[in-house]
Amino acid sequence: MSGLKRLSFSSSIFFSRHSRLQQQLFSVSVCMPRFCGLCHTMCSPPTTSASTSSSSCTSIFRYAIGVSKSLKISEKSNCLGRKQWPMQSSTNAKWVESENSSLVVENEGKKATGAKSKGLSSSSVPLFKKRLRIVDIKGGPDEGLKRVGEQLLVRGWVRTCRLQKAFSFIEVNDGSTVSNLQAIATANIEGYEKIDLGLITTGSSVLLDGVLVESQGSKQKVELQVSKLTLVGESDATTFPVQKKKLSREYLRTIAHLRPRTNTFGAVARVRSALAFATHKFFQEMGFVWLASPIVTAADCEGAGEQFCVTTLIPNSHTNPNTPINKIPCTKDGLIDWSQDFFGRPAYLTVSGQLNAETYATALCDVYTFGPTFRAENSNTSRHLAEFWMIEPELAFADLKDDMACASAYLQYVVKYILDNCKEDMEFFSTWIEKDLTTRLTVKWGCDLQSEHERYIAEDAFEGSPVIVTDYPKDIKAFYMRENDDGKTVAAMDLLVPRVGELIGGSQREERLEKLEKRMDALGLNKDSYWWYLDLRRYGSVPHAGFGLGFERLVQFATGIENIRDAIPFPRTPGSADF
Amino acid sequence: MSGLKRLSFSSSIFFSRHSRLQQQLFSVSVCMPRFCGLCHTMCSPPTTSASTSSSSCTSIFRYAIGVSKSLKISEKSNCLGRKQWPMQSSTNAKWVESENSSLVVENEGKKATGAKSKGLSSSSVPLFKKRLRIVDIKGGPDEGLKRVGEQLLVRGWVRTCRLQKAFSFIEVNDGSTVSNLQAIATANIEGYEKIDLGLITTGSSVLLDGVLVESQGSKQKVELQVSKLTLVGESDATTFPVQKKKLSREYLRTIAHLRPRTNTFGAVARVRSALAFATHKFFQEMGFVWLASPIVTAADCEGAGEQFCVTTLIPNSHTNPNTPINKIPCTKDGLIDWSQDFFGRPAYLTVSGQLNAETYATALCDVYTFGPTFRAENSNTSRHLAEFWMIEPELAFADLKDDMACASAYLQYVVKYILDNCKEDMEFFSTWIEKDLTTRLTVKWGCDLQSEHERYIAEDAFEGSPVIVTDYPKDIKAFYMRENDDGKTVAAMDLLVPRVGELIGGSQREERLEKLEKRMDALGLNKDSYWWYLDLRRYGSVPHAGFGLGFERLVQFATGIENIRDAIPFPRTPGSADF
Repeated sequence: MSGLKRLSFSSSIFFSRHSRLQQQLFSVSVCMPRFCGLCHTMCSPPTTSASTSSSSCTSIFRYAIGVSKSLKISEKSNCLGRKQWPMQSSTNAKWVESENSSLVVENEGKKATGAKSKGLSSSSVPLFKKRLRIVDIKGGPDEGLKRVGEQLLVRGWVRTCRLQKAFSFIEVNDGSTVSNLQAIATANIEGYEKIDLGLITTGSSVLLDGVLVESQGSKQKVELQVSKLTLVGESDATTFPVQKKKLSREYLRTIAHLRPRTNTFGAVARVRSALAFATHKFFQEMGFVWLASPIVTAADCEGAGEQFCVTTLIPNSHTNPNTPINKIPCTKDGLIDWSQDFFGRPAYLTVSGQLNAETYATALCDVYTFGPTFRAENSNTSRHLAEFWMIEPELAFADLKDDMACASAYLQYVVKYILDNCKEDMEFFSTWIEKDLTTRLTVKWGCDLQSEHERYIAEDAFEGSPVIVTDYPKDIKAFYMRENDDGKTVAAMDLLVPRVGELIGGSQREERLEKLEKRMDALGLNKDSYWWYLDLRRYGSVPHAGFGLGFERLVQFATGIENIRDAIPFPRTPGSADF
Repeated sequence: MSGLKRLSFSSSIFFSRHSRLQQQLFSVSVCMPRFCGLCHTMCSPPTTSASTSSSSCTSIFRYAIGVSKSLKISEKSNCLGRKQWPMQSSTNAKWVESENSSLVVENEGKKATGAKSKGLSSSSVPLFKKRLRIVDIKGGPDEGLKRVGEQLLVRGWVRTCRLQKAFSFIEVNDGSTVSNLQAIATANIEGYEKIDLGLITTGSSVLLDGVLVESQGSKQKVELQVSKLTLVGESDATTFPVQKKKLSREYLRTIAHLRPRTNTFGAVARVRSALAFATHKFFQEMGFVWLASPIVTAADCEGAGEQFCVTTLIPNSHTNPNTPINKIPCTKDGLIDWSQDFFGRPAYLTVSGQLNAETYATALCDVYTFGPTFRAENSNTSRHLAEFWMIEPELAFADLKDDMACASAYLQYVVKYILDNCKEDMEFFSTWIEKDLTTRLTVKWGCDLQSEHERYIAEDAFEGSPVIVTDYPKDIKAFYMRENDDGKTVAAMDLLVPRVGELIGGSQREERLEKLEKRMDALGLNKDSYWWYLDLRRYGSVPHAGFGLGFERLVQFATGIENIRDAIPFPRTPGSADF
């Protein structure tokens, strides 16, 4: 960990401390075009001389290392220029004092407070630490009892404020856990007038200073005895859309920017995040390399269903959606002139990273993708999204059994991870979203049945029991799946789970060049456009297998959430791409 | 861990073992539309009765839990139907024996081998274990010495095969580490004839059975004494594009499907993957929630630069790129008819997930995105991609200092992670790509300079020293940045690093509704279209801050790779979206 030091514009000065760097000019250079936050585009950075910037407070924080070069900052943007920003020179800067003059350095476990020195002051950016969250206070097995007596500063949003005669109960939530922290504010505390004024409403944001005490109530073990209440941001109770009352999922989708403030969507967000991390953790621990498969692709994908086209041929229409069709470049024959498009040919949003993953698997052995994929299908169901995230592992020197074993181990790993790490959220889902969810998820797989499992299963039939179906007839499966010896089926597998259906689809890939080419011919595919995919079979081909898993379906499976639109922050479906 | 059991089609039978489930039909149901691998689209699954499938080998692997429902698999696809697949019933399946009849169960640390039972056999999918890689053999500090004497099976691709009189040296690589494993094959071993036939060439894939022995050579500590050589896939030496000789980066980009088989791109892939995992690990450990910001968005982004349009209005042209322009739906006035587009209005690829991340930060406090973003800028430079990955943390109840502290801690964390976990790759970069890379990365930040650092810095000036510049003039920055008290500057910060320039750009966001609206008015932005963004300031607004980091620039910074096109597997740039 480090402190950072502040550098601000000034005339050139000399070092005062590090003898070997003395007399070296001390300034900074920025030498690349940068993304302009204003116009959301890459543009030329500002260029004016620092001599004009005396009125500017622009300053430079800098690691405590003395070096040179220069920086120029302009007060006037030339962000439409889009020329490359030339290297600038000759503006100098110096260390200056800042309000915080003690340098805190944590280096390999040791903490040191640097002395302030003239000329080279030790102002620093504060050390970044994990911040105190409500889950840190009361999320443990003792539900907060071990922190009783501690003076705490809690930040968050008010869920409810109940006025009693001489005091008020404030339920505050910071999104770190589904349950609130109860705070008690007596009428004599600093800031209580905000309550009297009716400003501590559902949705308002507050800071609460106080001492953690044992709770008198039965609903929680601890509560905060507030000594100071600070209202940070008001929330008009008459218009705030996320009131305490039950709101329909359909309605909440129309306010997707506020729905994470509800119990359900906060919990979905946390469990989704934990599932994503568990995914990375599993594959990284197993020695897999994460791969970014491309999102936009012009690679041939004959027979593909409806993909989204990605183009710059249609004039930008944010400000004016009235786009004359004759502004689209076309040839004299009235055809779209793809040569003028960004990629020089039609390009699409990817439907799968598998073929790309195969290229890396046949170099690095075990790889996985985890990224967005797209379908332009007009499906208005609770199981389809136009934009969804996929996990696609690919294993070299592997067959279908390895593939199934990997899928099974993966699924069990991530489920165990959230049961271990998201206890309160999982209990919430099990209570409010799908009764006995955790029972379903904790049914032992593969071991002899215990009576309680039998009973559960007998009562709920298919529920709770993932199933793999293998060796589909080849005519209903993709060209790249490996033909079995019977000549009729392919080494494919689907893993099916309750509530969701197909969660995982995988296969061993056809690694034999002749078989693959024959299959492509039979299906009328253009082999030339798959030259690179066939190369993997020409040069050092190996048996390999993989699978694809729709991440939002995993979220549905793991949380019991019924509609896939509620398993992703901002769902994209026909007619809907808001936010 | 679990075993899976195999279920195959048959007539209905009864359970033989679990008394409470006896007489319950035992079969499986698949009840959702599924993605068709053949046509790469969501389609109706096959539906024929199992009675016709006696010729099919389709079988069902199933967790060892007895349940019911039914499955129908067709040998004929109806993948163009796109109707929802109705729930099927009445086909039954039973447990059958398979070649592997011992059930291996690993449950909470205990291993058990289940007994085989009549009717309910215990065939299982094999347990998935981390597989033996070359890095596991020789990647440790002893470089493999502790495994000397072990019988190993090594898989990989041949880098070179050198024939001596009575034996051959084979250098094999499996992509798990940059260095090869040397194998010695004497002429008497099983499979040596493949060497005699000249088939063990650069790029061919092999299995090597053998014993690890101490190496006589000085280049490695251990080598494999091969007892059996299996050629898996040939590689025609006259055409294989990735020969031992030095190949230009430009050329390698044209064979992006094979370049991970080179030392450099294998190392980039591994370090990139480690950086991604370290990113997740840092934020998760700090209590941040990962958020999938949307890729396709119709949200207003006035003033945005050139974004990619995402549309289904242009007829699919994979098979025929000759698209008549008059096939695009238009109004009678000759305007593009956006109402017929997939989303009912113009939609674009995202340029940033920040505004979306703010909605979650103001509910969950600390969140981050990690996903692809896009620029349709026609920039043919070594620092720009049309498609790149961004990391965008957003912190609630935070100011610019918190933001800088987070950026600094993050950067140090991920650099330390790869130095600790990718030692051999980092040494490779330091030797072959950027001399003294690891010295640059290990320069202590924020602590008092040691003479070796001073010397390094003095000699290399700016190199090695990340710098943060803050408080830019507001006119060159985005509308959402928080105005400083001087009224002229904003609470923005950029973190600059050598070789890359701006690696991180961040700011405190304007949380004051009036200030924000005033700024939007001044810039002529349409406030109505940002209603949801403004809502975050209307209801429980809090100070918050965040930053964006271009992941490929981080890869450049961390590896010394000069061109950003070599920092991502399949770069997308003007005119280029192959693979």
